[in-house]
Amino acid sequence: MEIITTGEEVLQGQIVDSNAAWLAEQLNTHGLDVQRRTTVGDRLEDLVAVFLEAASRNRLVIVNGGLGPTSDDLTAAAAARAAGLILVEQRDWLEQLQARLKQQGGQLTAAHRQQARLPEGAETIPNPVGSACGFWLTIGQARFCFTPGPPVELQPLFHQHVLPRLLREFGDGSQILLHRLQVFGCPESAVAEQVKAVELPANTRLGYRPHLPTVEVKIISRGQGETLAAEHEQAVAAIRRTIGDFVYAEADETLPAVIHRAMQQQGHSLALAESCTAGWAAGELARQAGVSAWLRQAWVVYSPEAKICELGVPAATIDEHGVISRPVAEAMAMGAREQAGTTLALAITGQSGPVGADANVPAGTACIALAHADGVISAGWQHRDFGRNGNRKVQAWLLLDLLRRYLHQLPVVPVYVMAKPFRTV
Amino acid sequence: MEIITTGEEVLQGQIVDSNAAWLAEQLNTHGLDVQRRTTVGDRLEDLVAVFLEAASRNRLVIVNGGLGPTSDDLTAAAAARAAGLILVEQRDWLEQLQARLKQQGGQLTAAHRQQARLPEGAETIPNPVGSACGFWLTIGQARFCFTPGPPVELQPLFHQHVLPRLLREFGDGSQILLHRLQVFGCPESAVAEQVKAVELPANTRLGYRPHLPTVEVKIISRGQGETLAAEHEQAVAAIRRTIGDFVYAEADETLPAVIHRAMQQQGHSLALAESCTAGWAAGELARQAGVSAWLRQAWVVYSPEAKICELGVPAATIDEHGVISRPVAEAMAMGAREQAGTTLALAITGQSGPVGADANVPAGTACIALAHADGVISAGWQHRDFGRNGNRKVQAWLLLDLLRRYLHQLPVVPVYVMAKPFRTV
Repeated sequence: MEIITTGEEVLQGQIVDSNAAWLAEQLNTHGLDVQRRTTVGDRLEDLVAVFLEAASRNRLVIVNGGLGPTSDDLTAAAAARAAGLILVEQRDWLEQLQARLKQQGGQLTAAHRQQARLPEGAETIPNPVGSACGFWLTIGQARFCFTPGPPVELQPLFHQHVLPRLLREFGDGSQILLHRLQVFGCPESAVAEQVKAVELPANTRLGYRPHLPTVEVKIISRGQGETLAAEHEQAVAAIRRTIGDFVYAEADETLPAVIHRAMQQQGHSLALAESCTAGWAAGELARQAGVSAWLRQAWVVYSPEAKICELGVPAATIDEHGVISRPVAEAMAMGAREQAGTTLALAITGQSGPVGADANVPAGTACIALAHADGVISAGWQHRDFGRNGNRKVQAWLLLDLLRRYLHQLPVVPVYVMAKPFRTV
Repeated sequence: MEIITTGEEVLQGQIVDSNAAWLAEQLNTHGLDVQRRTTVGDRLEDLVAVFLEAASRNRLVIVNGGLGPTSDDLTAAAAARAAGLILVEQRDWLEQLQARLKQQGGQLTAAHRQQARLPEGAETIPNPVGSACGFWLTIGQARFCFTPGPPVELQPLFHQHVLPRLLREFGDGSQILLHRLQVFGCPESAVAEQVKAVELPANTRLGYRPHLPTVEVKIISRGQGETLAAEHEQAVAAIRRTIGDFVYAEADETLPAVIHRAMQQQGHSLALAESCTAGWAAGELARQAGVSAWLRQAWVVYSPEAKICELGVPAATIDEHGVISRPVAEAMAMGAREQAGTTLALAITGQSGPVGADANVPAGTACIALAHADGVISAGWQHRDFGRNGNRKVQAWLLLDLLRRYLHQLPVVPVYVMAKPFRTV
């Protein structure tokens, strides 16, 4: 199978071709192997040549882009030429589109009619969102599926209309079951090493998608018969057990969403005091809608003076232990909790870098603390230097993971693979 | 010209193919047009087939990836097979690598020798960073350039060794001059509309690279003769004048870096008070190393209570004008400035969304303020709804752009194209 993406802006690198990656991953996950990807621009003759070449070496070709109404959108014309067909207006699609537009108070325009001109005999694929209609067409011996370029149109169209048919016509009749675990604290290589010990059913395989500082672990079972679902569930359970509490979420859930749910269920409120991350942790939590219900307040206290004046960190603690130390993180957390009047408070002080040779702690060091009704928990971590902003991201995640672990009654100072304890006090 | 990227992880979409986009953009910027991009996995026969096809339709082919030491790295073997050559160890490269390793206290390993086995007669391209050697090879009528996959290796190797030669051998002898302007507040379409009025020399063209909420405008002059540089400078000046103070930086400079320089030169210090952006503005500034010299402190004050208790915003101001209002932003900024003892303070209160139908202000509304020694400046903005986190990003940029404008004595309430004034008080 081949994926062809089109468009001058993609070809010339003004836009990174994330659609091709998305399509390939979807297909691969569902057991449909992509053998080649091709990108061409908006020249008609290049498009025709690429379609004919792809037709000669594939049973199935997915084409993305070029279905819009402008003069650059030549995919349908090129498909027609490659197949030796004329373009005709697709009445069935125009009627569907008209009905939708009417509901929204709009009406058909010349641009809509232009976009509905597809190769004669093409089978339309309704676009659930936009006005560019997808279509199926046979060119030579190959079945082509033409899809719209904007990801917000491509993704629902692909899931609703394309994938089920691909599985039916090009799959081997297998059922595909997919589960995804979101992992923090253990990089891809270490997860892969750990799960080696798990005996998986022959029908089950694993995939990884790293995205600093997390990795998504995909458990994919493919097969037939009544036992598949049970085997898949067992495999998921075994992998989940092996990775353990490094799994912070499953499927599409995010870390802020997991924290949000627990904070609400437990009726907690939160304050944050950030030094090196400078607002990144608060900003990350606030990605989740609704956090204002419990995220009362945060301080960015870069300077020692701010730590002292705003949060009441004793100057003596800074002098004695250094500003990057667990006692300072603890004092920051307790000060923030007291001042904001919240049930919980998080604090972080660390080194994001870049640092000179005389730095007393290396870039990638963070001391974190969580103050609660009964006291304060703290930890010091040191990790690889990912550069200033990579470090800040990892440090913010270390802090938020401490909160997740506290809320879920998990070990709050785990044996991370990606960070080693930083020993102070 | 064609770009071929290799590797199963790229093909199957586990990694987005950013190298292909980077190479295409570099080549395009320097006047070398890419006509097609192809991606294949790690199967030897697929690689050989793709190389032979590319050889049949191009004068020049750039190949990326597959030069590592593992069994998946088959690019050199495939190139040799496509060209009908054997692999031989490249002594010249091994000597260079050995000298470098010796300096670093290392030595040659079997993996290094494996990576140095290239098609006989290939011309090596020294890798300035890693141990995977690039090479030139002729297959059929086409010149192939093989480059390593990791971006940190590809980019210096390409700039130092590949691009100069490509321009010499495949360019038309033209000189390419490039200047980039970084623009905020005016989207790509509006910039394009504005600069239409500028008469550019025949040798000069423009390119755009949008990256919400900014757009990079590239001015590219290509030609020969002594007047080119002067014409290019004139074109840059004309475009810069036309876009005006929406240009916040040039070339590789970032907004935090521009602000950092001005803050240091003018001896200012800063405090921030953020509501809707919840730390994003502070976190964005802190991307720039060294900001701790003047970024004293920031507050995230989500709740009205925090605005009142922490920053001394009068409860009556909130009651009278609503929490998303210029008077509240002004009170936040003045309170932050006073409490932190800084020369300047920024504040923002707004709606990032999602909102219900009963919201009194739509998502994408922000009131911002800057308190300084002589008083306070404020503005209200409303922009398109980019979704919660898109909105938070735009809102943080609106706030930081206010600071840039103040520091540079530019209009602090400009006529943005991407945002309209939000009228309160």
